[in-house]
This record gives sequence, structure tokens and C-alpha cells, in this order.
Amino acid sequence: MFTQVRLLRHKLHTMSLHMSRIMRPDDANVAGRVHGGTALRMIEEAGVIASTRHCNSQPGHENCVSALVRVERTDFLSPMLIGEVAHVSASVTYTAHHSLEVQAVVTAENLLNGNKRLTNKASLWYVPLSVKSPDKVLPVPPMLYGCKEEEEEGRIRYETQKHDRSQQQQCPSFIFSPTTDPEMHTVACSQSSLIHLVGPSDCAIHGFVQGGVTMKLMDEVAGIVAVRHCKSNVVTACVDAMNFHRKLKLGTLLSVTGRLTFTSQRSMEVEVAVEADTLVDRVIGNGSTMVAENTEGSQRFCAVSAYFTLISLSSDGKPKPVPQLKLETEDEKKRFEEGKARYLQSKAKREAQKGSA
Amino acid sequence: MFTQVRLLRHKLHTMSLHMSRIMRPDDANVAGRVHGGTALRMIEEAGVIASTRHCNSQPGHENCVSALVRVERTDFLSPMLIGEVAHVSASVTYTAHHSLEVQAVVTAENLLNGNKRLTNKASLWYVPLSVKSPDKVLPVPPMLYGCKEEEEEGRIRYETQKHDRSQQQQCPSFIFSPTTDPEMHTVACSQSSLIHLVGPSDCAIHGFVQGGVTMKLMDEVAGIVAVRHCKSNVVTACVDAMNFHRKLKLGTLLSVTGRLTFTSQRSMEVEVAVEADTLVDRVIGNGSTMVAENTEGSQRFCAVSAYFTLISLSSDGKPKPVPQLKLETEDEKKRFEEGKARYLQSKAKREAQKGSA
Amino acid sequence: MFTQVRLLRHKLHTMSLHMSRIMRPDDANVAGRVHGGTALRMIEEAGVIASTRHCNSQPGHENCVSALVRVERTDFLSPMLIGEVAHVSASVTYTAHHSLEVQAVVTAENLLNGNKRLTNKASLWYVPLSVKSPDKVLPVPPMLYGCKEEEEEGRIRYETQKHDRSQQQQCPSFIFSPTTDPEMHTVACSQSSLIHLVGPSDCAIHGFVQGGVTMKLMDEVAGIVAVRHCKSNVVTACVDAMNFHRKLKLGTLLSVTGRLTFTSQRSMEVEVAVEADTLVDRVIGNGSTMVAENTEGSQRFCAVSAYFTLISLSSDGKPKPVPQLKLETEDEKKRFEEGKARYLQSKAKREAQKGSA
Repeated sequence: MFTQVRLLRHKLHTMSLHMSRIMRPDDANVAGRVHGGTALRMIEEAGVIASTRHCNSQPGHENCVSALVRVERTDFLSPMLIGEVAHVSASVTYTAHHSLEVQAVVTAENLLNGNKRLTNKASLWYVPLSVKSPDKVLPVPPMLYGCKEEEEEGRIRYETQKHDRSQQQQCPSFIFSPTTDPEMHTVACSQSSLIHLVGPSDCAIHGFVQGGVTMKLMDEVAGIVAVRHCKSNVVTACVDAMNFHRKLKLGTLLSVTGRLTFTSQRSMEVEVAVEADTLVDRVIGNGSTMVAENTEGSQRFCAVSAYFTLISLSSDGKPKPVPQLKLETEDEKKRFEEGKARYLQSKAKREAQKGSA
Repeated sequence: MFTQVRLLRHKLHTMSLHMSRIMRPDDANVAGRVHGGTALRMIEEAGVIASTRHCNSQPGHENCVSALVRVERTDFLSPMLIGEVAHVSASVTYTAHHSLEVQAVVTAENLLNGNKRLTNKASLWYVPLSVKSPDKVLPVPPMLYGCKEEEEEGRIRYETQKHDRSQQQQCPSFIFSPTTDPEMHTVACSQSSLIHLVGPSDCAIHGFVQGGVTMKLMDEVAGIVAVRHCKSNVVTACVDAMNFHRKLKLGTLLSVTGRLTFTSQRSMEVEVAVEADTLVDRVIGNGSTMVAENTEGSQRFCAVSAYFTLISLSSDGKPKPVPQLKLETEDEKKRFEEGKARYLQSKAKREAQKGSA
Repeated sequence: MFTQVRLLRHKLHTMSLHMSRIMRPDDANVAGRVHGGTALRMIEEAGVIASTRHCNSQPGHENCVSALVRVERTDFLSPMLIGEVAHVSASVTYTAHHSLEVQAVVTAENLLNGNKRLTNKASLWYVPLSVKSPDKVLPVPPMLYGCKEEEEEGRIRYETQKHDRSQQQQCPSFIFSPTTDPEMHTVACSQSSLIHLVGPSDCAIHGFVQGGVTMKLMDEVAGIVAVRHCKSNVVTACVDAMNFHRKLKLGTLLSVTGRLTFTSQRSMEVEVAVEADTLVDRVIGNGSTMVAENTEGSQRFCAVSAYFTLISLSSDGKPKPVPQLKLETEDEKKRFEEGKARYLQSKAKREAQKGSA
């Protein structure tokens, strides 16, 4: 038995990963609170390292890098501040035949008084892609579980996310109303869009964008939509599950668009969609001699979409009432009702958890 | 006389500034060519240092920081590549009562073969603002000229730009056509927009955005519009004169929008406008204790606009024909004719320069 | 003789390099003091340019890029602040057969009052590697010295560092005590670790990490360890000599670990080690077509280690007493004694210099 425990410890040591970074002014909004997107990006970087390392751990394996396919719903419990240290711990927690789960825990440490607090937990799913032919998904080496229950619970999480991914609806169509001077607190008034051309640093570990880069851009747009609506500082409170359907390559143009769907007394729900456009298709060679050629014509597709929930903060950092969203079209009313249903469901869940605790 | 020369040398030494930096993958497009915006940002950083230093050089002066108010037309003669070293030299070349001119020269150095080539020259105008009350423009200490002619030529440049700034037209109104599926090669098909929330690193030297940050964002949008139109790699060939009318503070939301106005056989002209929105107005304190309060309500205004000319490149880096722009509205036809006039004028000027050389 | 002086001036002009940059909020800690690591990174960038330029200056040479192999002990005399301009001047000062020395001087300029002050000097050793086959070290073209003494002094520095490099002991073994709730002011209480995945921008000039990137990460960890121990702001006062044994490639995972070894009344010594893990071993080509080939299986090795000395600062920026380090193990006691010996030796040296000045 001792041997097994020792083995397990060794296993845990090699398979878990710890990352730390001091939060800098550029990681935060004007009120000094670190963007949820910064945490999402760190979590995903830890996840890609932990999962890639696991998938390459077998002797004689074919080289692979892992790509993010799904992030489960993530709640931000407490915002981090500039100067604090963010710690991310990530471990492989379940292995299926062709995908694996990484769980990550983020804590914020105030170096001056030594206080540490949990800021969020996340659960991510990756698939290992062959380095030689990135369209080929490789088998995942099985992990060693501490006990039967651990494996069984993982299997349930695996089945649940698999079902959810197969259900996944289409990307929302974002036809912006052509209003020049939209009325205050309407959807048209706060809708926002940014474009980002995928650069080399977005693709550090393999030839395609790390999922965390995309999530950070989405959080940025969600934040801008929310600030435009409530004219105060905001923080991201939670992000719904996201499925990443396709790899995004260097040179792809991402259009990240957000619009308000629902407001409660103290929260805003923003729907964010990422449309990808493979402008210039193929890039060959190294930094100084790269040539690009668009052989197949450009392709546009929806890469990912998600709901972000944000809250408004007063200047002393306390939650603040949110102006009610003015609905103008039938579509907006429909989306508002759907948002309300999601809001009530997650509220009920939170209360059930409190009750049981 | 020797003494005067020595003094002058001393003067030139203290007033000129040299900056170098290795070009990184993130500075370049997918074909490895450094963005014009990277050069514009370096030039402006050198300009703000040289001009701020000059304005604080008088004993007993009131402390000031200089803010960019105008950049003259800039031609990019030769693109830089990743791994090359960019050198910027900037000197104060004319001083008026309340503004001063900085001229900058950019060269690219290939470390492997030692070749250096001129990539562009730029001329920038700054005004010194009081550190205590940033709305107050301070007097500029007079510079020492090498000879009478030098001063006289500077005075002519000063009068010319002053006239141009007073003529400056209003910002273009960018009402995007609400087309969902625009036809290829129309204005609607390539128009693009990005948003950027002004962060602390954009405002290092004073409380407001360095002009170079804004120019870099504009070049980024211009490049995306051009790639969307011609589906190949592009490089910035020149940027028209730009006037910066107002200071942009930390927390301001910039919407940078670009649309094609004109295409020739081998070039595209993109009009880029920056709209500023002071979402959250007042920021007090430093990075860790900043609080934000919107006391006056948000304000939207046009911060700057300019025409960027870009050329399309084939995979071997040679200029490539550009698809002709399809015009759909009367406005688009009018702008096309205006663009053509600018194109022919600048072509005539280039040929006159060749003839005289 | 005049001709020789002129030649020398020309030589100095071509071989020296000047870099300037405004210090931004992200370069600094929460108290606005620029990290020693920012200066180290700028110095090394200037060094790699100056040395690569020199090694390619011979007609008919084989193309090479230089890689950092050693940095001599560096003292930080005065911290820089946000908004100040950092100037780095670097020149080649000695050439051996297969390595060369670059000396760099860093000054900080306050643009408002024109004051300039020396912040540090550094001495770096590089080897030229062939661009075609990066494992091949090329010969260094000899430099022209001003006088015999200059050459002789350089030769002594060369011999000294060569001896030191041959002596270099193994990387420290960092077995972190598995204590969950360590006692205040123990080594276990402040030990820290961060990981960094080497991205394209870390490797601009050749396929491997610029030494300055690694040094900046090490300084960051040293700072975190020190703040955790003394619960106040800190600045880096000096860094011991470092030897870089192996090239670190794109895609390598760096684990940077630091622990306190010694405290005096007013200073802390932190030992920092960088372990490299070639997750996916070989990366060829650019971002979008990178293929990675792990020919040898992943490898872990110690890339570099060094001692950083930091001092604690009170809120008004004055040095502050440091809590004494609590020693728990025999190893810790041994390292403390070694640290004390280094501290006393460097103190004696400083006093000898004062005495002779």
C-alpha cells in the first residue's frame, strides 16, 4: 500500500502544475480589479501544459500538443487586485480515450499580509493532436486514479459534457441595428465589437490559438458592453460553459461581438460570439521569409460563443444597482426571457448549495 | 567660433535621442514584415522624450510633459523584418512660442550582413502641458539654430502646419451599412472596427494616451481592412498628416474604424477614424488605489482621423494588383473621387522629386 | 596619431549601441519602482545587438547570432521610477577567440528636472553561434583597442570569468518542504516558484530565448520571495554572476524557483534556479506550421542559478529592518553560513573601494 501511495504522489507531482504571476496594472480595469479574462488565460495556459505533458508521458508515444475543446461554467468568487499574486494549480483529473479533463484552482495572495483566498475553480477538456498532422487526434494515456469513486465521478462528468457538446446550438447571428444615435440603456446602445488578428504570441505551444487568448478577448468585450450600459466599473462574476469547435490558425481574423441579453437588479448578462475569418490561409517558412497565400478563399465561421455575467461596482467597490435593459424588438424580448430563465436557475442552484452546506 | 561649435554640439547631444530595439514576431504581420504602426509608436516615443526634455531644459521652468498634436505625412520606404534592429533618432528641429517640432529618422539594420537602410522619416509637433494643470499650455524655451536658413525653413514648416490644422475638417461619420452578407470588394465588405480601453501602460509619461499608441491602433485597423479587401498580405506605404485635437485619458474607450475609400492598380487608401468615449470619467490615485467616478456623464468625440495607403504583396514579397473597389452609394463615389485626387497629387509630387533629383 | 584616433572613434561609433525607453506601470512594482529585471532585460538586449553586430562585421564571415553565456555581478545603485527614461549604452570591450565581452551602462533620466543618474553597470559575455548550425561556435573577429593596458585588463577579466565558469557548481536541488502551514519567517514560508512557457517573442533574434528574458523572470521570483518574507515593498540591490549553460528553445517550459538563504539587518539573499523542461522537444518553422519533434524525449535540466540580494523599503521609500530568517534544517543553516560569507566578503569589498576612493 505504501508503494502505491508513493507512486500516486509521484504521479500527482508530475501531472500537476503550479503557476504564479504578479498582477500588473495592465491586467486590471481602471479601478485596479483584475479582469476575469486574465484569470481565464492563466488557467488555460496551465491546462494546456498539464494536458500536453500528460499526453507525452508514455514511452514511445507519438508527439502531441493538446487543444482546448471545452470549459465548464466558471464562477469568480472574489476579484484580484494589482500587486497580488495569482496562483493557478492544474491537474489532470480524468482521461477518456481521446480527451482528458484538467481541473484548476486559482487563489489570490496578498503578499503584504500573507492572506490567501480562493478566487475561482475551473474544469477544462482537451484533446491531444498529433504534432506531425494536427488534424489527427491521438489516444490519451490512462491516468491512475486514487480510488474507484474518483474514476466513476470523472466518467459522469465526461458523459455530461459530451452530451452538452453534441447539443450545442448554432452561434448567434449578430446583425447590429444600424441606429446612429441609439437610445440609452437599449441593446443597440451598448453592443460592442472588436477585431483581433491572430499573432505568433497567441499560438505559442502549437500552430493555433490557445483557448485562453480567445476567452480573454471575449471577457474584454463583455466588460466593455457592461460598462457602456451601466457607466461604472464592472467585474465578471461568471462565465457559462463554452465549446471550442475548430482550431484557429495564425493570421486568422477574430471578430468578437457582445450584446446585452438580460439585466437583473444587480447583474448583467452579455452574450459574446467569436467569428473567425481565415483571411490569408497558408503561412510557410520562418519569421523572416514567411510567405502567405490564400489558396482556398477565405472562410468565415463561428468559433465559440458564451454568456458572461457581470456586476456593477460603485467607487468604493460595492455592488451597485444596474439600469434596466430597454427592449426594442421581439428578438430582444425573447433573449431577455431566456436570460431570465438562466438567471433564476443559477440562483436556485446557489441557494440549494447554501442550504446543503 | 570654436566655442560656439562646441556649444552647439553639446546642445545637439542633449536634445537628440537614439532608440534601438530588436523587431519581434509580435511586431510583424504573418509574412514577417514589421507593421508601420510599430515604427510610428517608436517614433512617437522618441518624440515625446526629446520634446519633453527640451521643454524642461530651462532653469526655473514650470514642469511640463509634451503632448502630440500633429504628425506630418509619413512614407514607409522599406519594410523591416523580424530579427532586424530598428533605430530611431529624434531631435528638436524648430521651436515656436507654444509648440515645437521633432524630426525623427528610422533605419533598419540587418545584424548578419551589417546593412543599414533608411525606412522612414517623420516630423511631429508637440505642445508642452503643465504637469500641475494639464489644460495649461506652457511656453517653449527657444532652441539654438545652426544658421539663419535653418530657422527660416522651420518657420515656414510651422506656418504651413498651423494653417493645415486650422483647416482641419470634421471627423468622418462612419455609419456602417447593415448588410449581413456584403458583396465581395465593396466598402461594406472590408470595413472594420476595433475597440480599445485605455490602460495604464498606454499613459506612461503623463495621465493621457501617448499619440503613438493611437497611431499603432489605427495602422492595425487599416491593415485589416486592406487584407479583407485583397486577401493577401499588405504593407503600409504611407500615412497622411494627422491632427490630434484632444487629450485621451486613462479609462477612455477608443473605437477605431476603417473603410476603403480608393483603390488604384497597386494601392488601397483606407480612411481611419478614432472615436473616444469617456465612459468612466474621473480616475483618482495610483495603480493600486484608483477609484473611478463618472461625474459628468460620458462624452463621445472624434479624437483623430487619417488616410493610410497600403499595397498588396504576393507570396514572394512583390507588389500585386489590387481588386478594384465596387462603389454602391453616392457617398462612396464622392469619397473615391477625393481619394483619386489625393493619389494623383502625391504621384505628381513623387515624380517631380525624381525629376529634380 | 590623429588618424588612429579618428579610426577608433569610428570603431566606437559602430560598435556601441544606445537604447532608451520610457518606464511604464507594468515595468514597476506597486510602489512605482522599476524592477531590476526590466533593467537586466534592456541591458541584455543591447548586449546581444552589440555583440552580434561585431561578430558579423568581418567581410566574408559566416552568419552568426550571439548567445549570452555569463553576466558578471551587477549592483543596482538607484531605483528608476515610472515615467523616467532608462538609457542603456553597450559596447564590445574585449574579444577572445570564441567569446566576447560587452559592457553596458544604465542611466535614469528624470525628464522634468533633467537629472540623470547612474543606476547600474553590467558586464556580459557572449559566444557567436552559427545561424546555419546553432551548435557550432564561430571565431570572434578581433577588436581594436585604444591602448595596450585596455587589452591587458580585458584579458585578465576574460581569464577570471573563464576560471569561474569552469568552477561552476551544480544547480541547487530545490526540494520544497511539504509543510502545508509553514511558520512565519522560515525558508518554507517564503519559497516561491513560477513557470513560463517560452513563446516567440522571447526568441526574436535566434531560435532560443534571449538571456534577458530569463533574468527578468528570475528577478520576479526573487522579489516575490523577499516580499513574502518581509511583508513590505522591496528592491533588488544586486545580482551575483550567472552562467548560462544551455540554449533554451521555443516551447520549453521554465520553472523558476526561489528561496531565502540569508538575511542581514537590512538585506535578504535569495537563491533562484531555473529548471528547463523540453515538453515537446523540437519546434521548427513559424507559428502556423510549427512542427515539433521530440527526438530525445523530454529533458529536464538546470539552465541557470544565481543569488539576488534585495532590501526592504518602508512606505516612504527608506530602507527598513528585515525580520531574521528562522532556520529549521541543517541544510538551511549551512546555506545561511555560506550566504553570510558572501555578504561579508562583498561588504569588505565595498569598504575597500570607499577607502581607496
